[in-house]
Amino acid sequence: MKTRIAILGYGNLGRGAEAAIARCDDLELVGVFTRRDPASLTLHTPGVPVYPVEQAEQMTDQIDVLLLCGGSATDLPVQTPKYAAAFHVVDSFDTHAKIPAHFAATDAAAKAGGKVALISCGWDPGLFSLARLYANAVLPDGKDETFWGRGVSQGHSDAIRRIAGVLDARQYTVPIDAAVERVRAGEQPVLTARDKHLRECYVVAAPDADKARIEREIKTMPYYFDEYDTTVTFITAEEMARDHSGMPHGGSVLRSGKTGWDDHTETIEFSLKLESNPEFTGSVLAACARAVHRMAREGMTGCKTLFDVPPAWLSPRSGEDLRSHLL
Amino acid sequence: MKTRIAILGYGNLGRGAEAAIARCDDLELVGVFTRRDPASLTLHTPGVPVYPVEQAEQMTDQIDVLLLCGGSATDLPVQTPKYAAAFHVVDSFDTHAKIPAHFAATDAAAKAGGKVALISCGWDPGLFSLARLYANAVLPDGKDETFWGRGVSQGHSDAIRRIAGVLDARQYTVPIDAAVERVRAGEQPVLTARDKHLRECYVVAAPDADKARIEREIKTMPYYFDEYDTTVTFITAEEMARDHSGMPHGGSVLRSGKTGWDDHTETIEFSLKLESNPEFTGSVLAACARAVHRMAREGMTGCKTLFDVPPAWLSPRSGEDLRSHLL
Repeated sequence: MKTRIAILGYGNLGRGAEAAIARCDDLELVGVFTRRDPASLTLHTPGVPVYPVEQAEQMTDQIDVLLLCGGSATDLPVQTPKYAAAFHVVDSFDTHAKIPAHFAATDAAAKAGGKVALISCGWDPGLFSLARLYANAVLPDGKDETFWGRGVSQGHSDAIRRIAGVLDARQYTVPIDAAVERVRAGEQPVLTARDKHLRECYVVAAPDADKARIEREIKTMPYYFDEYDTTVTFITAEEMARDHSGMPHGGSVLRSGKTGWDDHTETIEFSLKLESNPEFTGSVLAACARAVHRMAREGMTGCKTLFDVPPAWLSPRSGEDLRSHLL
Repeated sequence: MKTRIAILGYGNLGRGAEAAIARCDDLELVGVFTRRDPASLTLHTPGVPVYPVEQAEQMTDQIDVLLLCGGSATDLPVQTPKYAAAFHVVDSFDTHAKIPAHFAATDAAAKAGGKVALISCGWDPGLFSLARLYANAVLPDGKDETFWGRGVSQGHSDAIRRIAGVLDARQYTVPIDAAVERVRAGEQPVLTARDKHLRECYVVAAPDADKARIEREIKTMPYYFDEYDTTVTFITAEEMARDHSGMPHGGSVLRSGKTGWDDHTETIEFSLKLESNPEFTGSVLAACARAVHRMAREGMTGCKTLFDVPPAWLSPRSGEDLRSHLL
């Protein structure tokens, strides 16, 4: 019996999840729900129907797990509690500061509905969170650092696009190698935002725009750019399409800590290098769908995170197989 | 209420675990069991008693978790099933090929005694196994490689010491950078043992020993050395004590895999750089003791591995705290 999965929201992440499900023999995509006109969507997987989102709640008996592939800003805070009342759900909610509130709202809804909701699944939060947790558990006397990139930050790209005279923009977050090396060496340095990351901006300006003003507005933008060394490069729309259409990302979680009576230094590092951020995140969601189905079969209810999931439940392989080949 | 832990076996690993427990506010070392004369041992922790190993089974009500810190070759295959019948136990059994048999024997004993046994805890098997499992679950279409070192291999050092004319020896396993870089780049190369690791040997020879013969015997030793490029350097006992008394180790688990319909390459890497292998392994055992106590309180019995442990149970921190600060 395959786990029957539906996707709600067919943007980059939804398409990444679709492709990930296709690579898993034990998972089956049974439908996509959209707020757009279903006839306007063409899925990559043959034979999978597209439904209007309003139809979801009439199809609870045909779906084991619903993957919520909307955005964290406005979609998921509403969608996850709403759908967790009727489905086992997985989301990739990634606004770190709002996770406690999102957890509470989702937990209440999932418990009321007798369902399991696994939130904040992806790589950060997600696999990076797991790396931080394991490293903290093993090295209680230590210090973490997380570096992101080189990769496209959607939030920073959007912030630039809102500036008058900007037609398109792409922002790369770039970790500063010297800082990574100091952390990797176990130095536990005190690092500012500026010490850790550069921000590289590629901007297509309107023909009559004041480029000096745009550059100044970017570099002085509070929170997004003012605390960082930022470069701004104006390019053509053709260059943007040719050189910046990918969605690479990645980064590293490092923790160094002390052991023994003589304070030996131990360093743990977890790194990702991703050619496609949404396809990789979709792959994490697919594995999480498998785990949620298992949690539901074990009788669990309420809101969970990857911190609560026995790692084996993310895998289609048997315990015996895992012990023989991966332990 | 602290988790009351006893250590059985006071070698390098037992001492590493003792130091790790001292760094955890929620864990308490209540005793050490030894096969040696208890009067011959001086613990680092003040006030902790040392008992003859025969006394362990009369003290089950004073101990929440027993850490088995013996060796994998002859100690643990006997000790883990034996003590799992009477205690919740943790071991670091690391003979990969024999894990299924060790699991079966321990599982039967632990289930009969209503206890939990968490086996093969350390970094490989252990944290490296977790890295392999998560990476395989997320990237089913991919390839793993594990590199070890630069670090001291006890087994290879012992093998050299058994050669006639050798007074002392230390063998470092050294990953070959070019191979690591190819895997890190997502190439998925086919690599032989020789492509992946060098073996660096430091040998103290008896004054009258034939060094050419010793070097030849090392380099041609089946399985241990013949499949590798091996260097042999003869040094004095003083140099051995001065330059090679540490126990550093480490390594990397890498998996690259494909996502999406256009086969984008995603690479996951988990690395350790350890100044003290036994202290780090002891730190993993301490975190595992916490998890085993939790598993026992949840009513679980039988043999488990880290694959079965919800990550949060390795941490002393509450779910709320973990979600707020590490997710």
